[in-house]
Amino acid sequence: MAPKSDIEIARAAQKKPIREIGAGLGIPEAELLPFGHDKAKISAEFIAGLKDRPSGKLVLVTAINPTPAGEGKTTTTVGLGDGLNAIGRKAAICIREASLGPCFGMKGGAAGGGYAQVVPMEEMNLHFTGDFHAITSAHNLLAAMIDNHIYWGNALGIDSRRVTWRRVMDMNDRALRDVVTSLGGVANGYPRQSGFDITVASEVMAILCLATDIADLQRRLGEIIIGYTAAREPVRARDLKADGAMTVLLAQAMQPNLVQTLENNPAFVHGGPFANIAHGCNSVIATTTALKLADYVVTEAGFGADLGAEKFMNIKCRKAGLAPDAVVIVATVRALKMNGGVAKADLGTENVEAVKRGCANLGRHLENIAAFHVPAVVAINHFVSDTDAEIAAVQEYARIHGVEAVLCRHWAEGSAGITELAHKVVALAEGGAARFQPLYPDEMGLFEKIETIATRIYRAEAVQVDDKLRAQLRAWEDAGYGNLPVCMAKTQYSFTTDPEKRGAPTGHVVPVREVRLSAGAGFVVAICGEIMTMPGLPRVPAAETIGLNADGQIEGLF
Amino acid sequence: MAPKSDIEIARAAQKKPIREIGAGLGIPEAELLPFGHDKAKISAEFIAGLKDRPSGKLVLVTAINPTPAGEGKTTTTVGLGDGLNAIGRKAAICIREASLGPCFGMKGGAAGGGYAQVVPMEEMNLHFTGDFHAITSAHNLLAAMIDNHIYWGNALGIDSRRVTWRRVMDMNDRALRDVVTSLGGVANGYPRQSGFDITVASEVMAILCLATDIADLQRRLGEIIIGYTAAREPVRARDLKADGAMTVLLAQAMQPNLVQTLENNPAFVHGGPFANIAHGCNSVIATTTALKLADYVVTEAGFGADLGAEKFMNIKCRKAGLAPDAVVIVATVRALKMNGGVAKADLGTENVEAVKRGCANLGRHLENIAAFHVPAVVAINHFVSDTDAEIAAVQEYARIHGVEAVLCRHWAEGSAGITELAHKVVALAEGGAARFQPLYPDEMGLFEKIETIATRIYRAEAVQVDDKLRAQLRAWEDAGYGNLPVCMAKTQYSFTTDPEKRGAPTGHVVPVREVRLSAGAGFVVAICGEIMTMPGLPRVPAAETIGLNADGQIEGLF
Repeated sequence: MAPKSDIEIARAAQKKPIREIGAGLGIPEAELLPFGHDKAKISAEFIAGLKDRPSGKLVLVTAINPTPAGEGKTTTTVGLGDGLNAIGRKAAICIREASLGPCFGMKGGAAGGGYAQVVPMEEMNLHFTGDFHAITSAHNLLAAMIDNHIYWGNALGIDSRRVTWRRVMDMNDRALRDVVTSLGGVANGYPRQSGFDITVASEVMAILCLATDIADLQRRLGEIIIGYTAAREPVRARDLKADGAMTVLLAQAMQPNLVQTLENNPAFVHGGPFANIAHGCNSVIATTTALKLADYVVTEAGFGADLGAEKFMNIKCRKAGLAPDAVVIVATVRALKMNGGVAKADLGTENVEAVKRGCANLGRHLENIAAFHVPAVVAINHFVSDTDAEIAAVQEYARIHGVEAVLCRHWAEGSAGITELAHKVVALAEGGAARFQPLYPDEMGLFEKIETIATRIYRAEAVQVDDKLRAQLRAWEDAGYGNLPVCMAKTQYSFTTDPEKRGAPTGHVVPVREVRLSAGAGFVVAICGEIMTMPGLPRVPAAETIGLNADGQIEGLF
Repeated sequence: MAPKSDIEIARAAQKKPIREIGAGLGIPEAELLPFGHDKAKISAEFIAGLKDRPSGKLVLVTAINPTPAGEGKTTTTVGLGDGLNAIGRKAAICIREASLGPCFGMKGGAAGGGYAQVVPMEEMNLHFTGDFHAITSAHNLLAAMIDNHIYWGNALGIDSRRVTWRRVMDMNDRALRDVVTSLGGVANGYPRQSGFDITVASEVMAILCLATDIADLQRRLGEIIIGYTAAREPVRARDLKADGAMTVLLAQAMQPNLVQTLENNPAFVHGGPFANIAHGCNSVIATTTALKLADYVVTEAGFGADLGAEKFMNIKCRKAGLAPDAVVIVATVRALKMNGGVAKADLGTENVEAVKRGCANLGRHLENIAAFHVPAVVAINHFVSDTDAEIAAVQEYARIHGVEAVLCRHWAEGSAGITELAHKVVALAEGGAARFQPLYPDEMGLFEKIETIATRIYRAEAVQVDDKLRAQLRAWEDAGYGNLPVCMAKTQYSFTTDPEKRGAPTGHVVPVREVRLSAGAGFVVAICGEIMTMPGLPRVPAAETIGLNADGQIEGLF
């Protein structure tokens, strides 16, 4: 019999009513705002009442540099959560919400896979609880208020050429990347060049994910810089009196969503900021709430450890006062082989030497995690094509580097396939070895922060930045933004800015093309290479095959 | 003590859990998909199981031509529903959902007023159950697939100058009315002129409101004409294989929403098509479902009876096989005075003669309703400034025209203030006088349908239409669309196309500027005068004063 597909497994799930999942965490039914019978938001009042409780252990799941072979970071996050529960720990997972737009482009959802999934999978890949729609509305309300302000006399003196706030849509639509608006005559305002990003790239998304509560949310929304006057003075959302209405639009979206894994363990799915121009982690409020309700919280960060874990540590943990107790680095034999130079078509053939070569990528991530003073373990996410010799090569490599590499079969077996990793994570977390510290202090200069990440994490020889950008960074320091962390935007496929350079390259230079200030989110973005903020649809979009089948079930979405 | 504001009254409401409201209609809890504790969607399976049940009585609430003085059509719909329940009839109301965008422009929600409101009012004016966001997504997915198809080689031969499908956003944003998309070079596609409408103006909204079930929804979505080839052949959403994915996005939005009135009676709030380029009625599926579950269903239609009731009868009822049993025409002394020539500033002064003059507007609507062979009653929606003499003038006018005019105090008193009207409506509906028939047969030519509405409802002397438009109408007849009803787009303020001509003008000509085919919704739009499909924000948008107060309550939205 052929193995079941993800969607077949998800549909066969025996879901519990969400109030039972909430009850397992001690959340009274009245504090759960249901969305259907299998999803709920947790009330702000209940969350506010948790603040004096002790926090559980925080475990970050990250990965080697991603390749087309796949690593299964979300699948491992889900599996580890189930595994911890299976060995008697009260564990919850915290992952990001899926962006609706891309589901209609390339196939593939974002709820794990095999027997390590979160349900209801269809809804999580569609409208879910409406959070992204709320973010789209809040973002675009601000955009409308900017053009409206200019239309009615422009009392703030906004320079229409220097409006940096674009619009957003949760859709892959390349036609909207660059547009000219307000055409058609006097009644439609002053024409200007602008464009749309995808909703996950909105600063509002990053703000929602970093805000600690609704008051902090509004404060951050007010801080958003929407553009500049002719005298180059920043104009903020607060100046347009947009922050109150944006907060109202986001009030419900700010509350974390609770769903469940296939094994009926709690899963917080909340927020989904882009991992390039933003920090790529689920929301602070979901993570801190989960930590008050569970003994273990397993979460993930976007892309490989050079980008995702670095931002998780230096931005999310620093700013939210979180301290991870252990890190799991996910690797697959296939992805290590690709890092070792094997083409995707040849991954089915055993190649121990390539695995060994590719382990250099893993090794560097292990060293980097150690620099944050958090103990790590490697999870080998098992694929059916892996050979014993290949797996042994990874384990041997890790052992030499003082770290264990545990073979995990959660995709095929659920929690039963990942209990060894769960035990190891508990040992690391309860061993108390973690002495988390960010890579750089708040007081370090902005350029020096970029340099620190580039040389210590990416192992670059130098950072290339022209005088104009240096002057911009200094100007922001003078304006009081020098204490912000830096959010690196770089290809996820390599330690360098060249996506083709897999493995553990050295001797490269990191060119910074552009810097941006996200004053509301609270970071400075350093853009190194191309950065896509509005994807396009492929030649044959998944949308063409998505539809309801005769039983009313959704086909083609996964 | 000052009278309470709408929002104070709404906040003081003793809401019942929505499952209790559902239980009152015989809906099992498992068939309700909750959204919070006070909103729910009704499952498709449950609705499918109702089809052999008898239907209750259908009552339409419409109004004289609207004026800035307000008529209170929704308030009267809510009040009458409560009133019918108060006199022992099992009644439900069916109203439209509010558009989020306009709430941030001009003040004012869409959930009734005073002691005749639907709750939860805040959420109904914000994201509610996400229906409009789903419509936005489905509409814009189709738009993205059009440009994507052209980008990847344009196998269908779409003429990019003849793409009629625009994009939508649920926001008042004049800057998006006319835009040029796909600027920025090769990777972004072929630049073309386009624009955005507000979501309620989307044909997808009209389709959702006219579809009888999910299969009918998909069929209609597939029929949407997105533009034309160079040879002027229509290109449909089905040709782009977009209908399946659009249906998936809309599957949940298609299910009617159940909420409650202040008096805990059931309210179906579902769909909200524009009343100018669409038909302006709540969804067919909500109305037919309510009719299976209640003995009386009170619903409303947009604008005055010349537009709203005409479309309700000729489009919604005809196409859904509905037959209204009674019509309530809402009038206020203030609005009648304005129709009689009084300026808004002078409405506080008694002016019986002006009331009498304004009654000509009411009289014509009464005659028009009679043409559909449905019995009518006038509801005088009481304002504190009305004098006894003014009210008596309205009642006397109605009596002479063979119709009763009942004074209603539901705004101030809830159901207790409207029992007389409720009894009268029951007498009309159970009297069996209704012999509903549309104004024109399906087989009538498209131009003749326009002429019929213009001369019989608007009392115009003639319709002015140039040869090009006549040829277009004939071409649609040849293509098989001749049996569609006509959806008139005209100012709501007058029987004529001049909004300043109040009262009961005669001798005018109706100029048709443009005709459009909504092949999915299933009507031909005849545009007579200006038609706004994307509003702008006012000089001081309501958004500037919307925010959360110290108690976390929303201020400024109403």
